[in-house]
Amino acid sequence: MRGPEELRGLVEDYLADLVLTPELGGLSQAVRYALDGGGKRVRPVICLATGEAAGSEPRVILPAAAALELVHTFSLVHDDLPALDNDELRRDRPSTWAQFGEANAILAGDALAVEAFRLALAYSGPEVARELAQATQGMIGGQYLDIHGETHDLAALHRLKTGCLFAASVGCALWAAGVPEAEQAPWRAFGDELGLLFQIVDDILDEDGYFISHGLQGARALANEAADRATGHEADAA
Amino acid sequence: MRGPEELRGLVEDYLADLVLTPELGGLSQAVRYALDGGGKRVRPVICLATGEAAGSEPRVILPAAAALELVHTFSLVHDDLPALDNDELRRDRPSTWAQFGEANAILAGDALAVEAFRLALAYSGPEVARELAQATQGMIGGQYLDIHGETHDLAALHRLKTGCLFAASVGCALWAAGVPEAEQAPWRAFGDELGLLFQIVDDILDEDGYFISHGLQGARALANEAADRATGHEADAA
Repeated sequence: MRGPEELRGLVEDYLADLVLTPELGGLSQAVRYALDGGGKRVRPVICLATGEAAGSEPRVILPAAAALELVHTFSLVHDDLPALDNDELRRDRPSTWAQFGEANAILAGDALAVEAFRLALAYSGPEVARELAQATQGMIGGQYLDIHGETHDLAALHRLKTGCLFAASVGCALWAAGVPEAEQAPWRAFGDELGLLFQIVDDILDEDGYFISHGLQGARALANEAADRATGHEADAA
Repeated sequence: MRGPEELRGLVEDYLADLVLTPELGGLSQAVRYALDGGGKRVRPVICLATGEAAGSEPRVILPAAAALELVHTFSLVHDDLPALDNDELRRDRPSTWAQFGEANAILAGDALAVEAFRLALAYSGPEVARELAQATQGMIGGQYLDIHGETHDLAALHRLKTGCLFAASVGCALWAAGVPEAEQAPWRAFGDELGLLFQIVDDILDEDGYFISHGLQGARALANEAADRATGHEADAA
């Protein structure tokens, strides 16, 4: 089994070599800027790791893995816009709108989302792209809840905003690896816990979200419970 | 053969009954508002007409036809934003951002694009969605050229901004109707002229674009040439 750092290297190489749709023309510069911004590439790494665990080589899973990263990047580009979170910085660089202007950032986000589907549609069947579409709508619904503060249920918010795409990181890998639908349930149960686990750990590191609402000990306890559930499910799948 | 008005009625009924992804929650209101704004529904009508000419019932073609209208609507919602065309009115109503605010309009446009892929992915194969992704990237590339005034070649600009989605209105119908790829060429040649023809007629009616650059007589002559080419190709396909 390849380790996370090796998988992350494969993702970086794949993204660096990715040929964008030529019709995007000059807009490709802003798309490329957003995509080159680094980050942990957690979603594609989970996707590749799931694919490997299911017996598939990374080259088979990489289009799906990259599609997930493009959807995540699209969401960051649009979320950073002045009308939404108004963030001028992203990973120690100017955010895409701060660097290229709002109009370019709106169009670059759009192009990233559509390019994600182009990648997910590289497979012979529509299942990877269907999974991606469903998760992306959940993510957008979560972002809507977040900017409107319409829910006080933090878990429900994160289940949409973060959890959907994490769950799809497992789900897309299963389709790409050809795991039959009837055998997917235990893997998916594992994937469902991942988003929550990631969110809690991220909040503890940032002293944000769950850290504020549950305190350090409370957040740690929640994370441990999610990890126990995830590894319990993982044992079922193995 | 059903006439355009009957086909348009089928499109309106389908869109009115369309069940949006539940996870969109409260954002559905802005998505629905943008979609209910009327318009001529030219792209889905062309799609249904092509499907009928190829021997398929409207119910088979309607998901693809609606997907094209959703992509078109997504482009209008984002193009109207203050950072792009800054249009407060669209079809005699407040544009989506003027009615719901910029943040909601950005997210509603995103949701419309993804919902379009969800519809295009209702088919058993990925071809309809692939065609839609390619055309949508062309459209976005055209919008980029338009806001930056990077080209003085009006035909090249419209081939991307308008033509791609018109061509896909024919192409998506062919895939949905199961027309084999080897038999698609004459139909596609017809579809390639449609966007240009529509743009010229639209510009003559609005006294804009080709009306300004070529004058009324010049624009009419261009439209006649495109129509001749289109009907010439149509005769090949029949």
